Amino acid sequence: MENFTYFNPTQIDFGIGKEQLIGQHLAEHGIKKVLLCYGSERIKRDGLFNTVHQSLSDQGIDLVECGGIVSNPVISKVRDAVALALDSAKAIAAGVRYEGDVWDLFIGKAPIPSALPVFAILTLAATGSEMNAYAVVTNEDTKEKLFIGSPDTFPKVSILNPALMQGVSRDYLAYSAADVIAHVIEVYFTASTQPKLLSRLAESLLHTVIETTETLQDDPTDHAARGEFAWAATLAQNGLTFSGACGFSYPNHAIEHALSALFKVPHGAGLSVVIPAWMKWYHSRNSAQFERFAQNMFGLSTAEQGIAALEAWFNKIGTPTRLAQLQIKESDLPAIV
Amino acid sequence: MENFTYFNPTQIDFGIGKEQLIGQHLAEHGIKKVLLCYGSERIKRDGLFNTVHQSLSDQGIDLVECGGIVSNPVISKVRDAVALALDSAKAIAAGVRYEGDVWDLFIGKAPIPSALPVFAILTLAATGSEMNAYAVVTNEDTKEKLFIGSPDTFPKVSILNPALMQGVSRDYLAYSAADVIAHVIEVYFTASTQPKLLSRLAESLLHTVIETTETLQDDPTDHAARGEFAWAATLAQNGLTFSGACGFSYPNHAIEHALSALFKVPHGAGLSVVIPAWMKWYHSRNSAQFERFAQNMFGLSTAEQGIAALEAWFNKIGTPTRLAQLQIKESDLPAIV
Repeated sequence: MENFTYFNPTQIDFGIGKEQLIGQHLAEHGIKKVLLCYGSERIKRDGLFNTVHQSLSDQGIDLVECGGIVSNPVISKVRDAVALALDSAKAIAAGVRYEGDVWDLFIGKAPIPSALPVFAILTLAATGSEMNAYAVVTNEDTKEKLFIGSPDTFPKVSILNPALMQGVSRDYLAYSAADVIAHVIEVYFTASTQPKLLSRLAESLLHTVIETTETLQDDPTDHAARGEFAWAATLAQNGLTFSGACGFSYPNHAIEHALSALFKVPHGAGLSVVIPAWMKWYHSRNSAQFERFAQNMFGLSTAEQGIAALEAWFNKIGTPTRLAQLQIKESDLPAIV
Repeated sequence: MENFTYFNPTQIDFGIGKEQLIGQHLAEHGIKKVLLCYGSERIKRDGLFNTVHQSLSDQGIDLVECGGIVSNPVISKVRDAVALALDSAKAIAAGVRYEGDVWDLFIGKAPIPSALPVFAILTLAATGSEMNAYAVVTNEDTKEKLFIGSPDTFPKVSILNPALMQGVSRDYLAYSAADVIAHVIEVYFTASTQPKLLSRLAESLLHTVIETTETLQDDPTDHAARGEFAWAATLAQNGLTFSGACGFSYPNHAIEHALSALFKVPHGAGLSVVIPAWMKWYHSRNSAQFERFAQNMFGLSTAEQGIAALEAWFNKIGTPTRLAQLQIKESDLPAIV
């Protein structure tokens, strides 16, 4: 185990109907007025907005809306916006406490001074943003996709109600699964020190994501599977899988960020294209861990077999594995590079 | 997944030499004066007291000692005292904010009003108290062993330095392993709802405890194994293994608390006697999970084989599996009951 500091003060309130408690959570933190950030009007159609409005109203908390984070009503963009809303909220929370341009915080020109308290109600499981300090934001002008994070940008409370995630489409569930898998395996394969305990925890999350994705594609109303998927997605990015590892990096995310920024593909769809290709290129650098992956995840022997099995599984659940499926051409490669 | 609330604001600072930072952690929380609770004079012999004293002194923090939590210098009692010191500190922290007798808080006569901030430096891995709100305390008069916990009794910071745990004896390491295993399997076997994700995480911790205990009995200076053991022990009692489960209980701990209270046996040694006997009695109530345990932990088929394998492993590492090994006679059974 490498030296580490683990600190995660976010309170998770998990379960059916928990969004009704948002007003109480805010009141316990002395909040009198909130800026409600959301990605699409879907929350008004499906009743979530009304539930939140009522819960705040019961506690005498004022509400200012900040909706429509993206205006393009293509479903994939709407789903992305749902995830972006929380990242946007964190960036806004830090930005209001900084006198200059908020982008300064992303490029390291200034440290994050402090942040307004952030509270989240999840409608999509994938990013893990609900239980970490990070906010990933794209600058359209510079085409950069960068992140910030400080102890102040952890959400105070995040509400995870599996039922609120039920409307996620079959495709988007597959993209989310690819995103969670990427979060886990980037550390698992790239860490120069990777304690076996962390490999075991990682495999626990991966098995759960694979199993519950298949269950949910068969039956989107299975709340037990939805809940396990959601909690696995949260644990995949709350520090558990990398505390005690060192020397790890996120090369698949780095490559995919270029795809998202240039071609507006869903993040998870980009990842499922990048991951198998990256694994084929990388595996000889850490062959023991790739053989472990093949064995423990799929009961197979060689690194190549494990990679092929993951790629086949991506194909099975309907998330792309080739750039052509994202309408990206060979002539686009220089721009990506 | 059942509804749950997960909240764990304790900051873990893990690694070699981290105890030197205790003064800085205290200063960051605005602490000017501390009550230092410890179990034995060992910390003065091995230098830890001096390190802490220096770190506090550098920050201008005053120190009041509260040592010698038990006076009997038998090694097993000294080790127990190391664990008890943190529980004592939490109980003291809550007690000073309550006007009546502190035992009122344990028997539910009064709620925990608030608590002084608690900071911990671990010298023994087993109880998990470093990353949860619980304090277990025995009342010698009533022979009761009860616990308290509130959001205020989470340690603010816990420092885990594997090197500080190196002096733990071979026997006591085995008892600690039994304690960690008990924490994990009590939920694993008794939960009426046990998501597969939690079973997987539990098995990850169990495999790690088994593997690292054997490594450490061969080489007590293996810091990597010591670190994995310590972190697994922490995760076994920080809420991870039961958040999302329901209907679970701690029958082995309940029975063992009677053994500890009546016969002053080390807690883990009592547990390794209770666990296999309890498993033999209980397994037919949850046979699928016991078969899963046999398969995933030991590659065996039946519940009975899995139980026998765990009992054999307890024997192998040198923690008792029979009451007679604890000098407890058949004539003592009525008192235990």
